[in-house]
This record gives sequence, structure tokens and C-alpha cells, in this order.
Amino acid sequence: MPVKLTAPEAASLLPVKGVQLGFAEAYVKKPNRKDVLVIKLAEGTNVAGVFTKNRFCAAPVILCKEFLAVKNGIRALLVNTGNANAGTGEDGLKRAQQSCEALAGLLNIQPNQVLPFSTGVILEPLPVDKVIAGLPAAIANLKEDNWLNAAEAIMTTDIVAKGTSRQLQLGGKAVTITGISKGSGMIHPNMATMLGYIATDAAVSQAALEKIIHYAVNKSFNCITVDGDTSTNDSLIVMASNQAGNAEITAESADFSALQDAIADVAIELAQAIVRDGEGATKFMTVTVEGGKSEQECRKVAYAIAHSPLIKTAFFASDPNLGRILAAIGYAGIDDLDVNALQLYLGDVLVAENGGRAASYLEEQGAAIMKESDILVRVVLNRGSENITIWTCDFSYDYVKINADYRS
Amino acid sequence: MPVKLTAPEAASLLPVKGVQLGFAEAYVKKPNRKDVLVIKLAEGTNVAGVFTKNRFCAAPVILCKEFLAVKNGIRALLVNTGNANAGTGEDGLKRAQQSCEALAGLLNIQPNQVLPFSTGVILEPLPVDKVIAGLPAAIANLKEDNWLNAAEAIMTTDIVAKGTSRQLQLGGKAVTITGISKGSGMIHPNMATMLGYIATDAAVSQAALEKIIHYAVNKSFNCITVDGDTSTNDSLIVMASNQAGNAEITAESADFSALQDAIADVAIELAQAIVRDGEGATKFMTVTVEGGKSEQECRKVAYAIAHSPLIKTAFFASDPNLGRILAAIGYAGIDDLDVNALQLYLGDVLVAENGGRAASYLEEQGAAIMKESDILVRVVLNRGSENITIWTCDFSYDYVKINADYRS
Repeated sequence: MPVKLTAPEAASLLPVKGVQLGFAEAYVKKPNRKDVLVIKLAEGTNVAGVFTKNRFCAAPVILCKEFLAVKNGIRALLVNTGNANAGTGEDGLKRAQQSCEALAGLLNIQPNQVLPFSTGVILEPLPVDKVIAGLPAAIANLKEDNWLNAAEAIMTTDIVAKGTSRQLQLGGKAVTITGISKGSGMIHPNMATMLGYIATDAAVSQAALEKIIHYAVNKSFNCITVDGDTSTNDSLIVMASNQAGNAEITAESADFSALQDAIADVAIELAQAIVRDGEGATKFMTVTVEGGKSEQECRKVAYAIAHSPLIKTAFFASDPNLGRILAAIGYAGIDDLDVNALQLYLGDVLVAENGGRAASYLEEQGAAIMKESDILVRVVLNRGSENITIWTCDFSYDYVKINADYRS
Repeated sequence: MPVKLTAPEAASLLPVKGVQLGFAEAYVKKPNRKDVLVIKLAEGTNVAGVFTKNRFCAAPVILCKEFLAVKNGIRALLVNTGNANAGTGEDGLKRAQQSCEALAGLLNIQPNQVLPFSTGVILEPLPVDKVIAGLPAAIANLKEDNWLNAAEAIMTTDIVAKGTSRQLQLGGKAVTITGISKGSGMIHPNMATMLGYIATDAAVSQAALEKIIHYAVNKSFNCITVDGDTSTNDSLIVMASNQAGNAEITAESADFSALQDAIADVAIELAQAIVRDGEGATKFMTVTVEGGKSEQECRKVAYAIAHSPLIKTAFFASDPNLGRILAAIGYAGIDDLDVNALQLYLGDVLVAENGGRAASYLEEQGAAIMKESDILVRVVLNRGSENITIWTCDFSYDYVKINADYRS
């Protein structure tokens, strides 16, 4: 069950002017579930995206990058679940293109103004006819207060729909930000895992939006993946519909940081929700590594901890077998690491220093913290001033069950 | 249960002249189990070792490296299970040193002629008094035909004792090689995991022995670890007792390759046995990557596959969800990989080419192979002439169970 996570109330996901959402039950893979989502964008919306670095990236990811590069003005997004359209070669590209052409025809726009997204099983042909057959129904229910339905329409193994909103004032105008995400297989996110969509009605220049999305993803989704952006389909899109009446935000605007922080805040909440709904998760772990010479080496240590099945199973068992964390720090890849100089904390309890167990540490302290559902692992390297925080979850019987049974 | 692996017959583990083994039940952690092993070596034995690269390497590993560097002639090995003496700082070094001094006193040799080894839980003080109290009993039963008892004395979560022997002729003299190993948590070997001891009665120069051990470990134990030599305690020792009466083998000898191959063969069998006895293993997977530009990039791809919990759980479920393998190839870290140029085979069945599913591939073929207990995954990159083969196992409920319960 998700760790301290419930689906948002429909009313808590605030409409964003200029952004309409519609869904369909198109039977892409299974009956009676929302599996096609259309997001229609007002003319003049700026759109930025970041995508998986996987060399086997999915056909829709290839088209998204191509269409964003054309700069023809993105007017719609089309998402299907049930099939990732990845590992599908030339035929997969044709099918993704067909789906864009179909939606463009119905909305009277150009195919390269439609960004396509797919999520689900890899190596199987996209049933594009089913996706296309679902489009009229999705278009028929397009509306601005449809974010919860949209969040539900992009779920795969997710248990809980994920979304959140923020409001702030920019130059005296009220601005809304709403985002949704999907993803659950985050223990080792190497399949068609993560999608995120964040919209704001603010006027934001394209250059500022590009800057914001990279800032936000680095603080959020790039801090939950265990080994970088490795899925075939991972995609995050930020849209600014230019309907709030504010003066356009550029990277030089006084309000730029406020908007950037608010969007990053939404992204962090959406990213953490993916971990809290991680497959089989029973614990939410925050791993903070401080005092590194570079952010890069802090990430190495944090990921070594977050990766380790031995650590994750110990957390599942609420067993303070904390030597496993020292081992992970030791093999993280910092060749000149002085293990005698670092400290390991569990919550606020000092566990290890001087290369071994802290004299003050009591097993009961570790045992008490391990029983919590939200746990902080903190490593202080004492060799520099950089730091990083990432989030992960534990590793349970249910993870094996979910992934052994995924296709059946 | 181990995958096609049973313990060797005692008689199949051939004595090696000049190498005596003795064990004790010393109650290091649990009662009524062999947990201390002494190996006594004839004078003139050459010894070479390779050790973990973990920065949190255990106290005995630090002493082993130091004593081997002294070149005072190693005359004994002392192994305990039940405690890794890792993450124990200065105090851990003192305790390891004490155990060497105690054994040296009993055998009338110098402390730096004793190599110490520990395996078990990390971050807890070694009960060195118990280890020392067990030494007289171990010395009392020292004998050359004690290899199976020795293999049993170094087990931790291993289900099956691991050992094998070879005989060959070197310069007209019969030479014996016998080796034992322990290790089971090989899915992600980041704890006090792997120990291996290989002895031969051949006369082998120190330089030749160093060359052989690096060759052998690269072909064997370095092909089962998922992320390099990352445990705090991993150690492999090769001993040559100079009792077979052959002319000393040097790196230039005509017989050098025959001996090197025989020792590597023993190492490969011991390494594969560790995977077959992998924690919770139900399948033994051979991952071969061919046609790479370098062995390094082949290893990256092979490890990405061997690491992936999603792939390992699919193998546990006998589910040919092979898109997960494409995803792993895609994120393995070859930046200029052309996914349209590679082929993926399961056994001898072509699964994927041209960036997607092979036209000839039938799901039934994949399903039939996935039911086997020994499965070959073969990736042909078609970009060079290098290749690598590694071995791993699947990921089951029992892996979680074993590691969630390890300390209790």
C-alpha cells in the first residue's frame, strides 16, 4: 500500500486556464479503464519537455523531441496507457505518427502540433486503431476541471492517482500551477515508468520555461530515479498557457525565481508521490548525502544506498542492519574516500563514525526509527560543501509479486 | 533451493600435499556449527590474494594485504564466520591482529605469517575471544583430507558447501588443485559475501601465481558480481605448496597456460556454484554480450541485464517479458549505441532485431525457454569484436525473505 499517500480530491486540482483535459476508455489493453488522455492547449501556449536518455527510447519519445524542435506551437498532448510503443522499431514510429495525425484531424491542427506519449508493456505493437477509436469520446469530455480524471487515465500499476496544485501572485496577477504524474515501478525504473505533466496559466517565455523545467526535474524526478533517466518512455512536460494576464516571465524577471520554485515544488510533490506509491512500498526513505566535493559524488553515495536490495529488504523488515549502509558507501565509487572521516545518521541518531559504530549508538534507537514509515538516512562525508537529497522506498515481497505478475 | 547444485562428496575433494585443514565449533554467533577454519601451509608455499575494492573493507582484509606485502612467507590462514569484522574501525584491526597472534603462538610462527578472514554481519565487534578459544580444537583436527569440512566451516547463508578438484600433469608430475568457496548473497553482493581458497601442490613462482590469480578471478568471480568487487570482505587466495616435485612453473614455462587454465577452471566452477546457491535463486542465467568495441562496454550491458530487478523477477515468474531486456540494454551506458543494429537471443531463439521484435519470434518459443532452470541471454551488439560472459540468478520471494530476516 502507498506510504502516507492518498489520491487528491478532484476540487483540490485547480483548473488552469487554456488547458482542457478529456479521457476515454479505449480498451488499449484492459476493459473498463481510462486509458486514453487528450490535453488540448490554447493557442500561444509555450511547452517544454525533458525525456529519457535510454537508447531504446520509445517511438513517441522520438516524435516528441522532433515536434518540439520544429517549434510549430504545440496544441495538444495524447497519452495512452497499456502499451509503451517501445522496442517497436520503424513500425512503432508509424503508429505513433498515425495517432498524432488522427488527433490533429479531429482538432483541426497539424500533426506536429500533437505530442504523443505511451506507457505500458514494451516490445508489443501499439494497438493504434483502439487509441484512435477512443479520441472522439476523449474530445467530447474535454474541460478544464478534469485533472483528477486525467491523473487516473495515465495510471498503470499505480495504486493512487497523483496530482497537486499551487497558486501564487506574479506581478499582481493570480497564477495557477497544476500537475499530474504516474509511475510506480521506481525501485529500479527501467521500464515504461514515469510521466509527468505540469501546466500553468502564467505567461512564460520559451527560454524561461526551458530553464524552469531543467531546474525542476533536477530537484524532483531526477532525485527519485535510482540510476538516472533510464526508462524507455520517461517524459516530463511543462506547459504555460499565457492566460493569467501577467507580464511575460523571462529568466531575468523579478518573479522568475518565485515561479521556478513553485513549479519545482509541484514537481517534487509529484515525484515523491511516485516513490510513496512505489511497487510494493511499505517505507519512504529520504537519503541525504552532505559534505561531498561535488554533487556528483554525493549522488553516487545516495544512489548506492538507494539501489541496494540488501538495504531495502532490511528496511522492509524494520531491521537496523546498518552495516549494509556502510558497505554501500564504501563501494559507491569514491576512490579516495576516507571512511574514518564520515558520519552516518539514521534520523537524528549518530550510528557510525571513525570507521565503525558510534560509541553512543544504541541498537534500540535504530530499531525504534526503523519502525517508522518515513525514514531519513543521512551521510556526512566531511570532504566538501556539496550535498544531495534523493527519495526511494523499501523492497518487499509485493515488489517481486507485482513484477513477476506484471503482464498476466 | 540451489539451481542444479549439490554438495561435493568428501572423497571428490582431493588432498593437496602440504595443505592441512582443521575446523572448530566456536559459537562465534550460533551454537553447534563449524565457524572457525584453520589452513596450515607447508614452509615454502607461495600465496597470492585478491581482495575487495570496497573503501569500507574489513579489518582482516587490511591485515591480509599488509602481511602479503611483507613477504615473510604465509604459513596459515584463519577464517571465522558469524561476524565480518567490518565497519569496526581501529578496534576491529586490533581484534584481527589478536587472532593472528594467538594462532601464530600455537603454531610457532610469526603473526604476519597468518592471513585472517571474517564473514558475517557488519558493524558488530568480532568476538575474538571465542575465535581464539576455538583454535586448539581446529589445530587438533588439522589434516589434508579435510576439504569438505573446511567448505562447510566457511558457509553463512549458503545452503550447499562448495568445492571442486582437478588433476593434471606438469613436467611429468601429477599435480592436484582443490578449491572451496562460500557466498550466496550474489544478487547484489554488497555485504560480507564471498570467500574463495584454491590450493595446489605444484611448485609455482610467486610472480606466476600473481599472474594466474588475476587471470582466474577475471574469468570467474569478477563475472558473477553484479557491480564489481564491492563486498567489505571479498577475498580469493591461491596457494601453491611446492610439494608435487615438478620443476617450478614460471610465467615463461611451457606448462604455465595449462596450470593457469586449470586453476581458472576451478575458480569458474566455484564462482558458478555461488550463483547456483544464490539467495532465493530458482534460475541460473548466463548473460553473454558479443560484438562490443571493448570488453568494458560488453560488461556494462551484461551487468545492466544482470542487475535489473525487473528482469530478474520476470525470470522468476518464467515470463518472457523480454522488452525489459531491451530497456536494460538501452540504459547500460553506451552513448552511441545503435539499437537498430543489435540482436537479442534467448537461448538460440532470435527475439529482437531492427529495434524491435523479430518477425520470426513466437511468444511460445520464449515461454518454453523461460521454463528451463538454466537460461542463456545473448546480446550481439555488432559494433566490434569483444565479448564477455557473466552469470547471475533470478530474484524471488525467498531473496526478500532471506535478506529481511538475515540478522534474526
